[in-house]
Amino acid sequence: MSKALPTREENYSEWYNELVKRANLAENSAVRGCMVIKPYGYAIWEKMQRALDDMFKETGHTNAYFPLFIPKSFLSKEASHVEGFAKECAVVTHYRLKNDPDGKGVVVDPEAKLEEELIVRPTSETVIWNSYKNWVQSHRDLPILINQWANVVRWEMRTRLFLRTAEFLWQEGHTAHATREEAVAETNQMLEVYAKFAEEWMAVPVVRGRKTANERFAGADDTLCIEALMQDGKALQAGTSHFLGQNFAKAFDVKFQDKTGKQEFVWGTSWGVSTRLMGALIMAHSDDLGLVLPPKLAPIQVVIVPIYKGEEQLNAIFERMEPTIKSLKVQGISVKFDDDDSARPGWKFAEYELKGVPVRIAVGARDLENHQVEVARRDTLSKESVSMDGLDQYLINLLNDIQNNIYKKALAFRTANTFEVNTWEEFTQKIEEGGFLSAHWDGTSETEEKIKELTKATIRCIPLDFKEEEGTCILTGKPSKGRVLFAKAY
Amino acid sequence: MSKALPTREENYSEWYNELVKRANLAENSAVRGCMVIKPYGYAIWEKMQRALDDMFKETGHTNAYFPLFIPKSFLSKEASHVEGFAKECAVVTHYRLKNDPDGKGVVVDPEAKLEEELIVRPTSETVIWNSYKNWVQSHRDLPILINQWANVVRWEMRTRLFLRTAEFLWQEGHTAHATREEAVAETNQMLEVYAKFAEEWMAVPVVRGRKTANERFAGADDTLCIEALMQDGKALQAGTSHFLGQNFAKAFDVKFQDKTGKQEFVWGTSWGVSTRLMGALIMAHSDDLGLVLPPKLAPIQVVIVPIYKGEEQLNAIFERMEPTIKSLKVQGISVKFDDDDSARPGWKFAEYELKGVPVRIAVGARDLENHQVEVARRDTLSKESVSMDGLDQYLINLLNDIQNNIYKKALAFRTANTFEVNTWEEFTQKIEEGGFLSAHWDGTSETEEKIKELTKATIRCIPLDFKEEEGTCILTGKPSKGRVLFAKAY
Repeated sequence: MSKALPTREENYSEWYNELVKRANLAENSAVRGCMVIKPYGYAIWEKMQRALDDMFKETGHTNAYFPLFIPKSFLSKEASHVEGFAKECAVVTHYRLKNDPDGKGVVVDPEAKLEEELIVRPTSETVIWNSYKNWVQSHRDLPILINQWANVVRWEMRTRLFLRTAEFLWQEGHTAHATREEAVAETNQMLEVYAKFAEEWMAVPVVRGRKTANERFAGADDTLCIEALMQDGKALQAGTSHFLGQNFAKAFDVKFQDKTGKQEFVWGTSWGVSTRLMGALIMAHSDDLGLVLPPKLAPIQVVIVPIYKGEEQLNAIFERMEPTIKSLKVQGISVKFDDDDSARPGWKFAEYELKGVPVRIAVGARDLENHQVEVARRDTLSKESVSMDGLDQYLINLLNDIQNNIYKKALAFRTANTFEVNTWEEFTQKIEEGGFLSAHWDGTSETEEKIKELTKATIRCIPLDFKEEEGTCILTGKPSKGRVLFAKAY
Repeated sequence: MSKALPTREENYSEWYNELVKRANLAENSAVRGCMVIKPYGYAIWEKMQRALDDMFKETGHTNAYFPLFIPKSFLSKEASHVEGFAKECAVVTHYRLKNDPDGKGVVVDPEAKLEEELIVRPTSETVIWNSYKNWVQSHRDLPILINQWANVVRWEMRTRLFLRTAEFLWQEGHTAHATREEAVAETNQMLEVYAKFAEEWMAVPVVRGRKTANERFAGADDTLCIEALMQDGKALQAGTSHFLGQNFAKAFDVKFQDKTGKQEFVWGTSWGVSTRLMGALIMAHSDDLGLVLPPKLAPIQVVIVPIYKGEEQLNAIFERMEPTIKSLKVQGISVKFDDDDSARPGWKFAEYELKGVPVRIAVGARDLENHQVEVARRDTLSKESVSMDGLDQYLINLLNDIQNNIYKKALAFRTANTFEVNTWEEFTQKIEEGGFLSAHWDGTSETEEKIKELTKATIRCIPLDFKEEEGTCILTGKPSKGRVLFAKAY
């Protein structure tokens, strides 16, 4: 590490950018808005994928793969969908290059123009519902419960690593059902899967809620979401689950014969989370020394740094640690024994702090004599001497402890930064300080827009645990039936 | 199943197409040349991915992700690379659509034209080596051992499901090394990983070999390959591993300081296998009744079909089978108990044969009395009565047996269809019958081209176990130092 990170206090945004780069998570590429996800970052993403994929399969879904390209005409079939995506999409117009007659490079071959332009998928509802049309005849063909892991492209003008990139990786679930009730239940179920993943794996507490009409997915009748609070007081939408009604079924003429023999349109849902979760993970927990990773998603969960002079001491340390290493590996814990002799222990300590390794063990000659090791926790930065007897079980308990502690800390932060506000004055003052503001709103898109214009705050969601409560809108003073959650957001 | 598949004898090509569709592996999409990989096909691909990914990690590689788009100018930097890929690539020229002023659709917004066109990656050497440039300064930064799982696009004019599609899924390894020797060793190692995967997982025997200069990857100094023989006597290239020399390092100026302080260009390799392997898997083993899947890659390894009247009998069967099911699941075997009452056992039998489920168990009331089940093998179509005692272990042994038997059968087929030929007459006659022909060749590209023109046969590879042997070229009669492997190929 050449020099310290900017602190969060100094410049949260710079701290984030630098941390992502220095911890080798990702970097910008030569292609505008597209990132390179580096091995360490990708290893975290793989752990996320595996956990989510298991949860999708447990809830009855299977994976499949649909084309990268969407014929331009497909996009137009669902009116609000095209409205939402046409303005920021990558368009393929040609299928060949040829040698530049005037130079040594290559140019687009004008003779290889596509009859119909292809859009690089910004999301796959259209191409998938066009397939479902052929898959569904009878109620016996339903439900279809499919997920796909894929890359998508949205031509964002202002991009930030993980948070907003032109290309990103995600999963998109697309399900088809015989009844509205079943589709609604699926929408709810997948939101709960996301919330569980965020809380139990990422250790990020989330608010489960419903988007206002303004913020709904383009083509959905209802959009559910999970919202997390970052350390700078800004909210981050971490996942969405959409009830699509019969919109895409109607756009692509997907009908089925129900049990009584009647032709009905199919009901749909879609739901997705993306590499944006990486941004949430980083911003929710990390500190001025670097990443703080929840043990369940850490590529290296325990690192052992031997402190030694000469090969003999190194071997002695390794020999004594080997049973612990083996036992941990058998129990599915990833352990690294760092015997790289080109770096000093102090440098390594800083490096593993930067990388967010949850537990660091230091062992020297003296420790061997005392039959103990020094165990350092990344989350609290505390250290203690621990006996080598039963060290494996100690570490497994410690990892669980860290996972829980990180979650509790994030939850305490959110609790301390969620405020009920009742006046416009309070609102405008608090919103500058950050956090979730729970406030009355008159229910109109107009007011929502106006508040956004004046304060940059948006309605993150109408919480699912919304309570009826008489009140007056913070901006207009008109009557309101309950509080919604405002914040500035990523 | 509505009607029988075409037989392989009647029309191998039609048999393949129909089988892929009816077994729900994949289908064509509305986008020219792009396929939809359906859940059952994708489940097989996932098993392939998992096995390969584990092997890559065991050999020290990590995954990462690089951009989908390649700036046009990057392609031109390596002369033979652009030559190889420019003629069949999807080109993004615009980043926005707008409402058609004359109609209700959308059109490309001419004002949103990219300054430099972007190519949808046909392979990622250029964009990756452009990143490596910034990652490598010293010999301590080497080797870089990275793999990526990704979609790529090559604008093929004639496409076939899995075998040749405009978009396909693959993995591409890209490594960078300090020395030629290390890069060569990596190239060899990865070929061996592919060969092992083909033989031990896919149960497909392969010839390990080297491509002639003509058939080399565009940008490589040497291309190694594994070649498999399909049941119709045509060869299929199942994987390639390229020694890139310093070609991409020079094109992207990737240098490092070696231990003596000298600046040197980095040595590279790349290697890949794709969803084409699905085609190889299908064509190597399947029969006129449907798929024959090797147990290690079968999404369902054992299916249990209860034969019953009424719920009471069904429950009794399930109860008796439950310990076996549980025991198999614990041992990692995927078992399906098919209690769907909307289909008859006979229909189910045919369906699971079509789907290639390796082991099918039928159990009826009589079986319960006799404390036995009927076990049918998909590979040999044989059936036998087996006691319920120790059934789990019997099935595990049987699955191993089937895996081995499928491999042996494919190997016997290849052995029976590999011929040494010594004259042009023999060659032209045998090549029509199919199979691998081992023959002398004078070593010139000219002769290779001529043979291809005359017979459609190509040199699949110069086998790695090439033996020096004096001979004369089958076409030109010129001297040759050994035999190479010819075949017609997919």
